Amino acid sequence: MGPRTDIELVEQANTELYEAVERGDHEALSALWLDGQVSVVHPGWPVLRGRGEVLRSYALIMANTEYIQFFLTDVEIDVMGDTALVTCTENILSGGPAEDDGSVGPLIGQLVVATNVFRRTEEGWRVWSHHGSPVLTDGEDDGDDDGPAGPGEVAGGV
Amino acid sequence: MGPRTDIELVEQANTELYEAVERGDHEALSALWLDGQVSVVHPGWPVLRGRGEVLRSYALIMANTEYIQFFLTDVEIDVMGDTALVTCTENILSGGPAEDDGSVGPLIGQLVVATNVFRRTEEGWRVWSHHGSPVLTDGEDDGDDDGPAGPGEVAGGV
Repeated sequence: MGPRTDIELVEQANTELYEAVERGDHEALSALWLDGQVSVVHPGWPVLRGRGEVLRSYALIMANTEYIQFFLTDVEIDVMGDTALVTCTENILSGGPAEDDGSVGPLIGQLVVATNVFRRTEEGWRVWSHHGSPVLTDGEDDGDDDGPAGPGEVAGGV
Repeated sequence: MGPRTDIELVEQANTELYEAVERGDHEALSALWLDGQVSVVHPGWPVLRGRGEVLRSYALIMANTEYIQFFLTDVEIDVMGDTALVTCTENILSGGPAEDDGSVGPLIGQLVVATNVFRRTEEGWRVWSHHGSPVLTDGEDDGDDDGPAGPGEVAGGV
């Protein structure tokens, strides 16, 4: 049995988005994005708008990534009408450029949070917007395992 | 004449969101957020979910910010049905804790990009999600005024 509910279908589309990047599958990635005024923010990047810019940015990232794997946690999905809003944590393990012997470079871990917006289409749920950003940690001084950073770190950062 | 089109109404709601933070007006801010499963990501923070957590985070930020002003640029609005997706650049000028004489501390500038999602309600457009993230720059080595950072900086950061 395939997935049935909107929540399940959106979760599947969200998973497919990351799997396409993991495989470096530009064609699958293109098919997942809405045919419209899409936007993307990669961690630390400015906003990119429109299918052309969005898909070029992924091509660039995939061309410069030897290995990447996403372990998604905290996936929360809210569907209202024909729009779905997904938030999740991307626990990323990635490898740098290949070494001379063809192996990937040292693996690095990254913690990124994402807000992904999907629209219902006749072909299924498609990505309207992806916004990923680094989670900045500064030690454990706030004594709060999963809460936000302490106020001193965020003054002005809204 | 007030604003008329959806685009104008959404732009007004987006502006009001930032103005409420500038004024430290928690009541106005609360009224702008959807009564539902909202989410927020402040720059460098993890995802916060639900009106309670979202509004508490703003209260915390506003309590720890003496002065903040947003100069919005690159505001792009896309409306599909009852959902609006806004991207913009927040050029932020903020002041730290007050000095002994009551004045604000040194002003600092910050460059943040945001994806804001609004839903149409009977009371007007309301915020469903705000995701803000720092734009990281590393000099001018990519020779591209407003494009993304070069590939070397983003490997693995998707």
